[in-house]
Amino acid sequence: MAQPRIVIVGGGFGGLAAAKALGKTPAQVILVDRANHNLFQPLLYQVATAVLTPSQIATPIRTILRKQKNTTVILGEVTAVDKERKCIFVSNADREGVPIAYDYLILATGSTHSYFGHNEFAEYAPGMKSLADAVATRNKILQAFEQAEAEEDPSRHRDLLTFVLVGGGPTGVEMAGALAVLVRTTLKSDFRRINPASARIVLVDQSQRVLTTFAEKLSKAAKQRLEKLGVEVRLGNSVDLIDADGVMTAGERIASKTVIWTAGVAPSPAGKWLKVDTDRAGRVRVQKDLTVPGHPEIFVIGDTASLEENGKPLPGVAQVAMQEGRYAAKVIRSRVEGTSTPGLFSYFDKGTMAVVGKGFAVLQSWKVQASGFGAWLTWAAVHLQFLATSSLRIAVFLQWAWTYVTGQRGSRLIVNHHESQPVKAAEVAPRKPAAA
Amino acid sequence: MAQPRIVIVGGGFGGLAAAKALGKTPAQVILVDRANHNLFQPLLYQVATAVLTPSQIATPIRTILRKQKNTTVILGEVTAVDKERKCIFVSNADREGVPIAYDYLILATGSTHSYFGHNEFAEYAPGMKSLADAVATRNKILQAFEQAEAEEDPSRHRDLLTFVLVGGGPTGVEMAGALAVLVRTTLKSDFRRINPASARIVLVDQSQRVLTTFAEKLSKAAKQRLEKLGVEVRLGNSVDLIDADGVMTAGERIASKTVIWTAGVAPSPAGKWLKVDTDRAGRVRVQKDLTVPGHPEIFVIGDTASLEENGKPLPGVAQVAMQEGRYAAKVIRSRVEGTSTPGLFSYFDKGTMAVVGKGFAVLQSWKVQASGFGAWLTWAAVHLQFLATSSLRIAVFLQWAWTYVTGQRGSRLIVNHHESQPVKAAEVAPRKPAAA
Repeated sequence: MAQPRIVIVGGGFGGLAAAKALGKTPAQVILVDRANHNLFQPLLYQVATAVLTPSQIATPIRTILRKQKNTTVILGEVTAVDKERKCIFVSNADREGVPIAYDYLILATGSTHSYFGHNEFAEYAPGMKSLADAVATRNKILQAFEQAEAEEDPSRHRDLLTFVLVGGGPTGVEMAGALAVLVRTTLKSDFRRINPASARIVLVDQSQRVLTTFAEKLSKAAKQRLEKLGVEVRLGNSVDLIDADGVMTAGERIASKTVIWTAGVAPSPAGKWLKVDTDRAGRVRVQKDLTVPGHPEIFVIGDTASLEENGKPLPGVAQVAMQEGRYAAKVIRSRVEGTSTPGLFSYFDKGTMAVVGKGFAVLQSWKVQASGFGAWLTWAAVHLQFLATSSLRIAVFLQWAWTYVTGQRGSRLIVNHHESQPVKAAEVAPRKPAAA
Repeated sequence: MAQPRIVIVGGGFGGLAAAKALGKTPAQVILVDRANHNLFQPLLYQVATAVLTPSQIATPIRTILRKQKNTTVILGEVTAVDKERKCIFVSNADREGVPIAYDYLILATGSTHSYFGHNEFAEYAPGMKSLADAVATRNKILQAFEQAEAEEDPSRHRDLLTFVLVGGGPTGVEMAGALAVLVRTTLKSDFRRINPASARIVLVDQSQRVLTTFAEKLSKAAKQRLEKLGVEVRLGNSVDLIDADGVMTAGERIASKTVIWTAGVAPSPAGKWLKVDTDRAGRVRVQKDLTVPGHPEIFVIGDTASLEENGKPLPGVAQVAMQEGRYAAKVIRSRVEGTSTPGLFSYFDKGTMAVVGKGFAVLQSWKVQASGFGAWLTWAAVHLQFLATSSLRIAVFLQWAWTYVTGQRGSRLIVNHHESQPVKAAEVAPRKPAAA
């Protein structure tokens, strides 16, 4: 009898945890992702602020799974799921809708950013979900300083050196802190006509505090730290408009050429593929064993799943996704191997952290609430440990140590992906006899 | 009296050498480049083959010159030069044709790749001159393996796993060697349906030997080494056609989805800006002091200048550009400071090298001609030494050591710069109350 086939869609924290947990199962495992790399999203803001290079937070999925001989990795975008025929449809570069049959399916397709019905904001305020987003944001930030330096008229410097971050969650707070350190240390001596330290950084959120998922005390500590770094924190006001000239908030125009969006998140379209019940946000409502009602062979995990525990929905964080991935793998393994079914899923919350600038973080875990340098060291150690490979751990550790000591960053490049053009044939004659 | 203003266009090897040599001159120095980084082009092929990350071969120009207080760096593209009014015109993100006046001008605008009148090749065969080129080539190479792995029908694997390199100069030879090592070591265990080592790598050049600027003995050694690595070297035939299905050479169709162009180079349009005499290739004919006839205040250096020594044109290499940059700076300094004018420019050729695969290079310097491991060590030491900053030297050294020992590479990422799209407003309702 042929081995059963387990198809996992998504190589993020959840999908990868599931794949690893299935490494020794007598089954054929196929992992499909539209990116060739697993992305360590918690450090994405460090790519956007030029601390780390893209390759320091991303690892090819097939490198991570290379030793797992029962697993095939496929690069492609899933476009549909046929629950009855038990197959998914995958498109890649030159082929559309190639069917891949499954016996078990794990959907771990994550979330993307959302402008809450204001998609016209996208043109002016990039989000922060993929490597391409982070590189685009880095380009935008560095470009603003370059434009200001090129500008001999100082009256035009102000808008160029105003940065508005929309969203006071971990990404917004971490971005604001990293940006403040960038302008006050890394860029300090690099310009002649402008003073980067005079840059204005504004963080806007409509909540009454930043980091709403943390204890109130820690929100306050984070806000104070941001203000100490020179960030203007504006709470309790929504952003009503974003355009080429800046934002409108609380009836006031903040002129800015660089607006960054970290406010909203929306799940992948897994619910639409499956045509099943979703919550208000569009996440698939799963049962306590993470399967879809009526389909014990379909699991949905991570940011794209909706599951409540103690009356509260589980948050869209890496820990939930990883624990769910491991659980789904365990259930499938028990069925494939005919062993006893594990108990229902329950989430073990280890805690949560956010870093604010250099040498400062807030942390809560069980009864512990801490802020300051110790929390930052813990943050650094935990994040290093969760990187995908030991070579990344070494590379990121060295980069952080270097940045901490020298203030210099790893990747201050503006890469324009449309810059390079061959010379037109008519413009010049060949320089040497054509090799081709 | 105001200090004289020296404008340098181009932050490559030549322009940067000139800027550095002017660090202590009582003058205002302005360096203009359309990229924010100095690119170490000799290692560009290592980015294209995923060994190094873009930031390991590129450094922000303003970081390099940060301590030089008389120097301002401007990001912008030069569109014209007015010799009579002594100013250049610079465009950047939101402003067009801003004039910058000069007393002395150094044009060090380099070269780009050229398809020798076949610009229709560009769509199928990217060149190798900028970081964006190298990243695009890397995407293309890695994508080919991904597409083959996604393909269950083995008859379609052949075209996807055939790589054609057009051009047998140093870049083509180095690319071919690095690609051969990539498929036979780095990718070895990563795929299930394909065997990366079965990839076919073809190097085509119409010359009778590779590396025509080297001694014949070394060309032969390089060719033998390439063949030992499994590269098919096809000499004496031009490439007559490149399209979506591959190339035509010597009446034969080589089916390939991945063609890379390293054959041709063409100078920047500096000659057209100046409306002066150029050689057949379009390079500005300069006098023995590197100035343009009739304009002792305008210097043209590097790949975009044409100068003969002993009846032979100087080659378009980093050494020539750097020595010319330092010479132009010296002449300008003598005039600004009123000291005696230096003698005419003469090029001191230290030698040339090319690496072929792992642990093998060819090298010629004066009477020395060498090939093998010793030449490779020399190559590695010299290239490390010429990197722009000590942090890059450390980073590249560590990366090379890691790659040498483990076979793994630093940056196997496919980054699709159009991949990330916010979810359409109509698709899902907000997940949580909008922060904005």
